[in-house]
Amino acid sequence: MKTEPQPLEAGETSKRLTSTQGVTRGLSIVDLILRIIAAIGTLGSAVAMGTTNETLPFFTQFVQFSAQYNDLPTFTFFVIANSIVCGYLVISLPLSIFHIIRSAAINSRIILVIFDTVMLAILTAGASAATAIVYLAHNGNASANWVAICQQFNSFCERTSGSLIGSFGGILIFMLLIVTSTVAISRC
Amino acid sequence: MKTEPQPLEAGETSKRLTSTQGVTRGLSIVDLILRIIAAIGTLGSAVAMGTTNETLPFFTQFVQFSAQYNDLPTFTFFVIANSIVCGYLVISLPLSIFHIIRSAAINSRIILVIFDTVMLAILTAGASAATAIVYLAHNGNASANWVAICQQFNSFCERTSGSLIGSFGGILIFMLLIVTSTVAISRC
Repeated sequence: MKTEPQPLEAGETSKRLTSTQGVTRGLSIVDLILRIIAAIGTLGSAVAMGTTNETLPFFTQFVQFSAQYNDLPTFTFFVIANSIVCGYLVISLPLSIFHIIRSAAINSRIILVIFDTVMLAILTAGASAATAIVYLAHNGNASANWVAICQQFNSFCERTSGSLIGSFGGILIFMLLIVTSTVAISRC
Repeated sequence: MKTEPQPLEAGETSKRLTSTQGVTRGLSIVDLILRIIAAIGTLGSAVAMGTTNETLPFFTQFVQFSAQYNDLPTFTFFVIANSIVCGYLVISLPLSIFHIIRSAAINSRIILVIFDTVMLAILTAGASAATAIVYLAHNGNASANWVAICQQFNSFCERTSGSLIGSFGGILIFMLLIVTSTVAISRC
């Protein structure tokens, strides 16, 4: 449904233009809301993982047993990935608002799709790498002789498992963002 | 640059249409080539990981030490993810060829973007989860008392590390696919 920018002569053309603009504006509003939700989700994930710290109530002569997120490089990557994505989402909000006002903007939408795609990959990488380690912490692996550490570090494991939720929610939202942007571009 | 499908009257409009169509067709050809490369890459990854099997030359009375990809659930997921994505890429080839012929098709392009986005997420999840485990196999983790198993299973580790390459190449290609499709949609 493409229309050359031209002086509106027929009422029918005008009506169709308005309807298309309405759909595009609706998609832009959905885009803004999804971005805000995803920003909160990824921020929550980063904070939940980043503040995880458990010290066991017993210790030997030499070692006080404790577990922090940065004992595992994968969890550090998870916190960094979620922080980057959250920062990007906040920065992208003004552009998203701009799209509500000027629903015909195409180039800025394409730029958002490019960055959204990169951020989807970064967030998915962080979340699934952390999931692999959390799974290992819960179940261990007999073949590789890796023990499940969740028996000892119970609250640490619960906290890290929970922090994955916001991140996976963010992944779903990024998929929706890319699709809604593409549909909006096709209707511009 | 939007034009209502209309009888071509002015030569200028006709020329611009042809030029736009040329760009869109070029993007469709790039799309097809990228899909073929990504299909080969993910197939290679799946096969390389799936056929990994190392038996150590020494054994005790009870245990013959051996390592296979399916000893680690994450590697199994990696093989499944790569197989799914490779299968999808092969299925999407006819549609990609159709886009070269009919460069004005929009709806089928949007459908491809939706599936490409989902596949990007699946492939990234598989690759980065496997990377987390490969990293652990190489370096171990002192805090969690997980030993590096790569000293024993040297060729197993090399093989699994190498199999990640095709998968990460596939991730980059999926990003390019989404961007080229979006640009093509904006020019349709």
